[in-house]
Amino acid sequence: MQTVFTITTRGQGLYEITGEVAGWLGSLGVETGLVTLFIRHSSASLAIQENADPEVRTDLRNFFARLVPPSSDPSMSYLTHTYEGPDDMPAHIKAALLPVSLGIPVVGGRLCLGTWQGVYVFEHRDAPHRREVVAHLTGG
Amino acid sequence: MQTVFTITTRGQGLYEITGEVAGWLGSLGVETGLVTLFIRHSSASLAIQENADPEVRTDLRNFFARLVPPSSDPSMSYLTHTYEGPDDMPAHIKAALLPVSLGIPVVGGRLCLGTWQGVYVFEHRDAPHRREVVAHLTGG
Amino acid sequence: MQTVFTITTRGQGLYEITGEVAGWLGSLGVETGLVTLFIRHSSASLAIQENADPEVRTDLRNFFARLVPPSSDPSMSYLTHTYEGPDDMPAHIKAALLPVSLGIPVVGGRLCLGTWQGVYVFEHRDAPHRREVVAHLTGG
Repeated sequence: MQTVFTITTRGQGLYEITGEVAGWLGSLGVETGLVTLFIRHSSASLAIQENADPEVRTDLRNFFARLVPPSSDPSMSYLTHTYEGPDDMPAHIKAALLPVSLGIPVVGGRLCLGTWQGVYVFEHRDAPHRREVVAHLTGG
Repeated sequence: MQTVFTITTRGQGLYEITGEVAGWLGSLGVETGLVTLFIRHSSASLAIQENADPEVRTDLRNFFARLVPPSSDPSMSYLTHTYEGPDDMPAHIKAALLPVSLGIPVVGGRLCLGTWQGVYVFEHRDAPHRREVVAHLTGG
Repeated sequence: MQTVFTITTRGQGLYEITGEVAGWLGSLGVETGLVTLFIRHSSASLAIQENADPEVRTDLRNFFARLVPPSSDPSMSYLTHTYEGPDDMPAHIKAALLPVSLGIPVVGGRLCLGTWQGVYVFEHRDAPHRREVVAHLTGG
């Protein structure tokens, strides 16, 4: 069983999709299985992170912005793939550092997420984008 | 088939769980399949690393401690999620950088790990924690 | 259904395997499923990245070379696992930062990769190596 979630992003940051994934899973009525998520882009990522304090997402975003500054930053002058904008190559680098796929077991009909875990799309580009996440459920 | 491994950690570092996973798999008698591991926390990770020389784990831990210093470090003064201690937000960042899930094929009844690969829980907090890793086996 | 892809690398860099994986999948005639890839090494990684402009791979490689310099670099003097060469411990660190496994849903008989996504082996050692990637297909 498969579906595609489409997420419209509004610049860099984390966008929660836990509810969409859980809702789809609930509609299938499967007790035990494995949900695999895959993001079809090389300038955005998946992430599982704390969904309680929103400051965690702000800090995460700021950490990655410092670890991989825009290509206009003097420290990044070695970058050559710059014609799509100063946020483009850093987006590819962040997409290499963060997950493109996640495997989440289904236990008792639910994603086995910990109490504080949420599922996110991590947008690395400045401009709004339409991002596709493919979900695949293996039963049993 | 599913199980949960519970690992008691004693501060930051890598804790090997290869034996637990292999033992569970052996008890099931499955020849071909896929084991998915998922850690139910946002301040600890999974890792697959060399299990021969223990210095590799020491160096790994030290690398990540330098890449993401405690929030008390002047270089991290931009962090805002600090009320759970100076090791807390860095733990969330490390948990974003390192795997939350792993998929390991089962070939000939065994995890298809390379000669030097071991499976680890990577604890990012200073205090001891009880960590849960969910394992899911897909047969065939 | 499983296979092993063997890739001969010629030093640090990204080696595309999209064609090999797609060719194997095509030969199986499966419409819907999940391909899991697993690399059996702790000094090389998998990666999904843009396969259009080769400058993206050059920039990625240079970013990681700066993030994790050779152990002969003064900034890495804290490393202890150095007897296998200055590129060895950095290779383990990069292997921790980048994926060891990937899950890619099969939709309509094909890997559900985005338009610009390619699958790569990311070699972290300087010397040529023979790398094994295990592929597992779960049907349905």
